[in-house]
Amino acid sequence: MRGYTWGEQPEDPHTIKLNTNENPYPPSPAVARALQGLDVARLRRYPPPLADGFRAAAARVHGVPADWIMATNGGDELLRLLITTFLEPGQPLATTAPSYSLYPVLAAVQECPTVDIPMAADFTLPDDLAARANAAGAGLTCIVNPHAPTGQLFGAGQLEQLAADLDGLLLVDEAYVDFVDPALQHDLVPLLARHDNLILLRTLSKGYALAGLRLGYGLAQPSLLEPMVTKTRDSYNVDLIAQELATAAISDRDWTTDNWARVREQRAALTTALRGLGCATPASQTNFLLAQMPAGVDAGQVKQALQQQGILVRHFPTEGLADRLRISIGSADENARLLAALKPLLPGSATDT
Amino acid sequence: MRGYTWGEQPEDPHTIKLNTNENPYPPSPAVARALQGLDVARLRRYPPPLADGFRAAAARVHGVPADWIMATNGGDELLRLLITTFLEPGQPLATTAPSYSLYPVLAAVQECPTVDIPMAADFTLPDDLAARANAAGAGLTCIVNPHAPTGQLFGAGQLEQLAADLDGLLLVDEAYVDFVDPALQHDLVPLLARHDNLILLRTLSKGYALAGLRLGYGLAQPSLLEPMVTKTRDSYNVDLIAQELATAAISDRDWTTDNWARVREQRAALTTALRGLGCATPASQTNFLLAQMPAGVDAGQVKQALQQQGILVRHFPTEGLADRLRISIGSADENARLLAALKPLLPGSATDT
Repeated sequence: MRGYTWGEQPEDPHTIKLNTNENPYPPSPAVARALQGLDVARLRRYPPPLADGFRAAAARVHGVPADWIMATNGGDELLRLLITTFLEPGQPLATTAPSYSLYPVLAAVQECPTVDIPMAADFTLPDDLAARANAAGAGLTCIVNPHAPTGQLFGAGQLEQLAADLDGLLLVDEAYVDFVDPALQHDLVPLLARHDNLILLRTLSKGYALAGLRLGYGLAQPSLLEPMVTKTRDSYNVDLIAQELATAAISDRDWTTDNWARVREQRAALTTALRGLGCATPASQTNFLLAQMPAGVDAGQVKQALQQQGILVRHFPTEGLADRLRISIGSADENARLLAALKPLLPGSATDT
Repeated sequence: MRGYTWGEQPEDPHTIKLNTNENPYPPSPAVARALQGLDVARLRRYPPPLADGFRAAAARVHGVPADWIMATNGGDELLRLLITTFLEPGQPLATTAPSYSLYPVLAAVQECPTVDIPMAADFTLPDDLAARANAAGAGLTCIVNPHAPTGQLFGAGQLEQLAADLDGLLLVDEAYVDFVDPALQHDLVPLLARHDNLILLRTLSKGYALAGLRLGYGLAQPSLLEPMVTKTRDSYNVDLIAQELATAAISDRDWTTDNWARVREQRAALTTALRGLGCATPASQTNFLLAQMPAGVDAGQVKQALQQQGILVRHFPTEGLADRLRISIGSADENARLLAALKPLLPGSATDT
């Protein structure tokens, strides 16, 4: 069994980190205010075990009761808890191929196999996904939506049908959902009341620029959350500071919606520029792009060449992805420096400059 | 299967909380300085996955290489990881009876039974502990030392023999070890080099007054830690702020040793006072006391009566403990208020006042 290979986390502050989908902009000023206002003497006591303040704030955002929310030590903890709580050892987890590379790692820790159901060539969901997951006896199916690493969004209707058709639980991992174009009015929360096997994963790591804080949460009917809340979760899984800063962050709606708009603006510009360099780049609803290198260009070598210039991007040397790079949306300056470094590495570009 | 029953965590700041063994004094001023100096913009990135800064600081304290240290999201996470990493489902965990009530809960989550090996009537370790754990096929034996809920310390020689005799791993849970009288020169760290099946658990929750921060760590040979560090641990299990504040706290040796001395001073005074009220109270090496109520006094009723006055203590209604209360050492003022509230609840005392 192999552990998860995490993206490089260099200490050098000058590195342009476009490899782990962090937000290019800082967190809300409300986070700094909450930090400065925190009385450290309170740290001597255990934190609220259920993160009640954060749950109430998240419940207000989503328009659900507080007990439809469960706070976790990053989204990773929720993924692990779903597997350890709802899968028996040996029972399969189903997901798409490709998908978030952590799912099979966490499943293997629990001695559960992963059923990889191939996506269509255009990275849409296959029509027989539920049938295949059910046939394999999957107790949990994980769909990351918008999808990683392709950036594509599956619609609410398609996911609701999937929840209805699956014998087991459906996790929709919405790590990147904050970056979806609001004109699409995409919202899966209304589905929860109709499907007691559906759980949504959210995180403050991406949309709220708080990857360092480790705060994720699940959204589902209380009956689904209950065994994780009362039994399998560590009793004090989220520390006091994370609870308070996350509450401040999620309550600052103006800052967050502005942050997401800025990321979308950069996303549009970077997509256009990459296409202009000959990289087929599907429209993305996330804060990253999956750029296909032009024919004859080795994506792994491009990744290495960029790294030598202090620019990190992600390369997955697996089927269907080996000729692509996953590039997080940076700030305007970071994106410009990426493009300047990328251009000489692509055919024809050197003569254009 | 039942979840862990955690001690009450009331919101009312006027409550005297002597029920969950928190430190009565605030954390080091270095923690407040680290908090004030933290640039929140750094939170947008993932934290160092292995908490390298904290590991280096803890390694300096204990005189071991940094890779003998593993940081966890509270000591609870280390306990869970030991069980999920080293026990197969169905394989027993061994511990003493009584012991920390979380062990059997975490074992049950992993579908592992717990072998409770009764302590002697004077709460010493039974001579046949290793033999009984081995006979049961225990893959992991957990000893909390100093012991909870009795407060007694087992010596290094006895624990080293246990490590040598056990077929499986030995966890010594040193959650309370910071409060041991320094005149005893108690230190299990030198045993680690001689026993590759021994792991020590430490936490900043008690000795460093940082229960709200969720920072624990394991000390062991790297070969023992490795599967937890690289496979079963969540990739970013400790958040950036917890890493930085814990590093500041553990590096401030003057403050911490002074804090521990103050707690020991209160411990001595409270022990004497409780004995004076007719409560048999063994000498404790922790920050709590296990006080036996006088004959004819119902400990559960005393606990309830104290709670009605806003004073929380812990009562375990189980064999050998039902006539006792576990009382955390508070500040001088808190202890005085506890004693004033306790006195009228005990026989003979009402007429003494």
